[in-house]
Amino acid sequence: MDERDYRFLCDLAAQLRVDSVRASAAADSGHPTSSMSAAELMAVLLARHLRLDPRDPANPANDHLIFSKGHASPLLYSMVKAAGVVTDDELLTFRRHGSRLEGHPTPRLPFVDVATGSLGFGLPVGVGLALTGRKLDRLPYHVWVLCGDSELAEGSIWEAFEHAGHEGLTNLTVIVDVNRLGQRGPTRHGWDLSAYARRISAFGWHTIEIDGHDPGEIDYALADARGARRRPTAVLARTSKGYGVSEVEDREGKHGKPIKDPEQAIIELGGPRDLTVDVRPPTGPRDPYDFVATGTLDLPAYEMGEKVATRQAFGEALAALGAACGDVVALDGEVADSTKLDAFAKAHPERFFECYIAEQQMVAAAIGMQARGWRPYAATFAAFLTRAYDFVRMAAISRADLCLVGSHAGVSIGEDGPSQMGLEDLAAFRAVHGSTVLYPCDANQTARLVADMAGLGGIRYLRTTRGGTPVVYGADERFPIGGSKVLRTGGQATIVAAGITVHEALAAADDLLDEDGIAVTVIDAYSVKPIDVERLRIAAADTGGIVTVEDHWPEGGLGDAVLAALATSPVPVVKLAVSALPGSATPQEQLEDAGIDRHAIRLAVQDLVKRATG
Amino acid sequence: MDERDYRFLCDLAAQLRVDSVRASAAADSGHPTSSMSAAELMAVLLARHLRLDPRDPANPANDHLIFSKGHASPLLYSMVKAAGVVTDDELLTFRRHGSRLEGHPTPRLPFVDVATGSLGFGLPVGVGLALTGRKLDRLPYHVWVLCGDSELAEGSIWEAFEHAGHEGLTNLTVIVDVNRLGQRGPTRHGWDLSAYARRISAFGWHTIEIDGHDPGEIDYALADARGARRRPTAVLARTSKGYGVSEVEDREGKHGKPIKDPEQAIIELGGPRDLTVDVRPPTGPRDPYDFVATGTLDLPAYEMGEKVATRQAFGEALAALGAACGDVVALDGEVADSTKLDAFAKAHPERFFECYIAEQQMVAAAIGMQARGWRPYAATFAAFLTRAYDFVRMAAISRADLCLVGSHAGVSIGEDGPSQMGLEDLAAFRAVHGSTVLYPCDANQTARLVADMAGLGGIRYLRTTRGGTPVVYGADERFPIGGSKVLRTGGQATIVAAGITVHEALAAADDLLDEDGIAVTVIDAYSVKPIDVERLRIAAADTGGIVTVEDHWPEGGLGDAVLAALATSPVPVVKLAVSALPGSATPQEQLEDAGIDRHAIRLAVQDLVKRATG
Repeated sequence: MDERDYRFLCDLAAQLRVDSVRASAAADSGHPTSSMSAAELMAVLLARHLRLDPRDPANPANDHLIFSKGHASPLLYSMVKAAGVVTDDELLTFRRHGSRLEGHPTPRLPFVDVATGSLGFGLPVGVGLALTGRKLDRLPYHVWVLCGDSELAEGSIWEAFEHAGHEGLTNLTVIVDVNRLGQRGPTRHGWDLSAYARRISAFGWHTIEIDGHDPGEIDYALADARGARRRPTAVLARTSKGYGVSEVEDREGKHGKPIKDPEQAIIELGGPRDLTVDVRPPTGPRDPYDFVATGTLDLPAYEMGEKVATRQAFGEALAALGAACGDVVALDGEVADSTKLDAFAKAHPERFFECYIAEQQMVAAAIGMQARGWRPYAATFAAFLTRAYDFVRMAAISRADLCLVGSHAGVSIGEDGPSQMGLEDLAAFRAVHGSTVLYPCDANQTARLVADMAGLGGIRYLRTTRGGTPVVYGADERFPIGGSKVLRTGGQATIVAAGITVHEALAAADDLLDEDGIAVTVIDAYSVKPIDVERLRIAAADTGGIVTVEDHWPEGGLGDAVLAALATSPVPVVKLAVSALPGSATPQEQLEDAGIDRHAIRLAVQDLVKRATG
Repeated sequence: MDERDYRFLCDLAAQLRVDSVRASAAADSGHPTSSMSAAELMAVLLARHLRLDPRDPANPANDHLIFSKGHASPLLYSMVKAAGVVTDDELLTFRRHGSRLEGHPTPRLPFVDVATGSLGFGLPVGVGLALTGRKLDRLPYHVWVLCGDSELAEGSIWEAFEHAGHEGLTNLTVIVDVNRLGQRGPTRHGWDLSAYARRISAFGWHTIEIDGHDPGEIDYALADARGARRRPTAVLARTSKGYGVSEVEDREGKHGKPIKDPEQAIIELGGPRDLTVDVRPPTGPRDPYDFVATGTLDLPAYEMGEKVATRQAFGEALAALGAACGDVVALDGEVADSTKLDAFAKAHPERFFECYIAEQQMVAAAIGMQARGWRPYAATFAAFLTRAYDFVRMAAISRADLCLVGSHAGVSIGEDGPSQMGLEDLAAFRAVHGSTVLYPCDANQTARLVADMAGLGGIRYLRTTRGGTPVVYGADERFPIGGSKVLRTGGQATIVAAGITVHEALAAADDLLDEDGIAVTVIDAYSVKPIDVERLRIAAADTGGIVTVEDHWPEGGLGDAVLAALATSPVPVVKLAVSALPGSATPQEQLEDAGIDRHAIRLAVQDLVKRATG
């Protein structure tokens, strides 16, 4: 780097600071001080190390940059302005109604792969992208992640360090902006860069400690990082929050607020500039790797009446889908023998990713993969997906296309007890923006839904059951998303069930007909969201009363979905769900105890019919 | 340790193994192999280092033992049998219906502080207990945690290592049973103890690497750990899964299954034994520290009409509650200036715990504190509590008494955008077993609910709002849990709102009366769970139709709670909620965009009334 380069970088950094101050001043909110600490870091990256084509966001060979400290969005937007992607006018729409320059970055803006703003999320996704570059795309792009020091307190960050270190992702660099100050006050480790270096290097990373305001040191570190062999690199940069503006520099209580006197600040920063950066496009290969696939889906077929666990069908169907489609990949939380993802692992080892017991990292890696167009399925116990709930929430805000599969749902798992029972997953996934929630009751239905969910957008959740359930549908049956199936027809009441409770509902319907002379309709609501509003309204009108039954807490699940579907044209609904905290017991005892077995359903229908006729 | 002691410990370990095999064989399920690897570790701990009174589980001076690897429950139950807490007959009820020896431990059994079984949960709670011993109880008890090696992949574990290392919790020892095999296969690091030692010691811990089947080495390590100065200790023990039984020892595919030939296994292990251990009770002080408190609650009072943020009232009320009650403590996720927990921090610094940006550890520390009888309030943004959702789930299974407060709920936060908006929290918390969900609309209501929630059991969640809202209740008003308030009375429709939307509903009601001549009832459903079923049914009967309005996704929140309350005696309900993904905008623009402002409510009521009369 010569003198001129050095001066340009200093000027560019000053411009990024000025623009961060201006954008936040225009918005009268935002995080200028958190942007200013990292201005040199990002100036050097943008001008000298990032390889992406500003005119072609879809170029598969582009580098990726993730602002894990998403609140430093003014800095990011100032960078994309300097790169010519947005105008200065647009920069000043920051945080305004309708602007794609949101308070925290989202993929509405080109080159933003994921929404950030929930700290500890960006780096795990970056690991997923780097893994994608290495093992799926097989392209030499580099993944750069800007982290704050505060967010290193998040456990998810250490799942990411472990994952990347173990995989030896040399194509990943994290730049930590160690500005010493969190939101409320000083961080745990302040400017003790070596405290971070000890921790991160123990996880198998190469670490470099630098002065984060010296373009020369930064340039050396980033070149070193790009050329790293064997290990990912963490650049630990000592910086000052609010650097360059005396009103705020290195002061507490200045987080997340615009500068009080922006004009004075801009003067201190040397005034506005209008530099542009010609970001260098990638050279070398640009076609992602293509896995061999048949193109023809040959789903497993199960015999009617046979007892098969839906988790088993999930694994076998996903393996078949993987054979047909080379872009389908799978991620495991070290329970593939239980979720039955093992069938995919065996068939397609190159597209199977073991994430060990780190559910957040598993979901984040999947998000990284879908950002590059792969179609990931991530699976663990339904109960343990709650560990990644924030990441699922952020995936939805990221407009991610993601399939998640939770096994061992409900009390029907039996003896293992409540810690292993997914009993809140339907509520949690229904309350994810734009989600689809599926809950099949038999093996053929599962296989078909596993295949069909690949074609949907957004967050898709499939819930599977541990024990075997009888196959009630033929292998050729279709199950539209948003649809349902009528398994019995009768005029006196309707039972709405899904998954394991479909079989209890069928048994109850038979008992009701045989023993009580009561004919009921049984609806299999395999599509919990969107639910089959049309069919439910017809059944409600025809039968006048509904019993819902679900292996889930009473709140937010199937029963609430049915109530919501009928909200404006209601009929009496009796909701059967798990209300007492279960212990250990056999699956059948659990269903009985919870009051969601055939007998409980029968009683509820008897009662409903009695009240209707009484 | 002399020859006899050594032999006794070997015999005791063999007994623990045999009993683990017997219990799992009787249950025909469970995790004997994961129990067998840690038998010597737990034998030495039980016989020589644990200080607790087996006849007095309530003794505040007792040591604590947490099985973070909860699936090794057969080992735990074999230990309590050896200590005389349960009989051999009860041991063989393992995993049976009604037995307190559940598949994974729960506090139904004495000396079990928390439910475990979701890996990565026990150690974080242990850190909370050790912190309690040091800073709250101020008693010299020791906290012992048994971890598996697989679960060290969980980020929550590293939040815990960081927290304990930073606090220098010498009263905490984690024993890691490095048996090399996870559920599905080998762990990342196998028997590389130094890989773990490097990582853990980088987080400020003392580490000791030992042969986990040698009672002498174990004894030395545990004595060293108990006597540690300055730092917590991690004992890294190399063990074999299924140790001592050739059918399973160190073999893959043997996780979570009973031994096929238990009789042969018992013979290999030297046959059944009937040793008992006189666990030594604690000596020294047994009275927990008592913080000075007034005993008189002097809640802040706000003027009617004044605009105050409910988060502000939360902070001030909690500070007042802390002054009255010495057992109230508070935990922060490094956002106390935003949640307004700072008011408590200022007033009661000794009872305030900064957990930095580590929401799982924050919740876990609170769980540890309540296990010793303290009353914790933990607060962060509602959105970021989703990061700890699994821990909240496990807290409920642990029968924990816990207050959680989520600020910045809903789109009404404005410019920061969706990553910061809690929009799924009502759904998530409603679907927690035994939870209470509160959502106040003004400062006086908030203050009263903050105080009243202290007296409840289980998981209590309070949702607060970022912006100021007018005070609509007098300071003397009472707000029973499960109650509601009628703020307007009119016969043509009912609007049910909570929190921020109460004010929109009131404005809509005024507009409807003034402009349209439509008189509506407005219900403030501040208690979202339990909801005021009685009042809702009366209003439904009186007005014939309901509009619900909430700053939350449509699923699982207030609207669904109202629908569930009216399920068996329904009226038409129109649910207004946030359905499109928000961007940045002002609070008022956000409410408008989401269709939950006064105008949208007015339109919905007009439409409802038109349909009813049309």
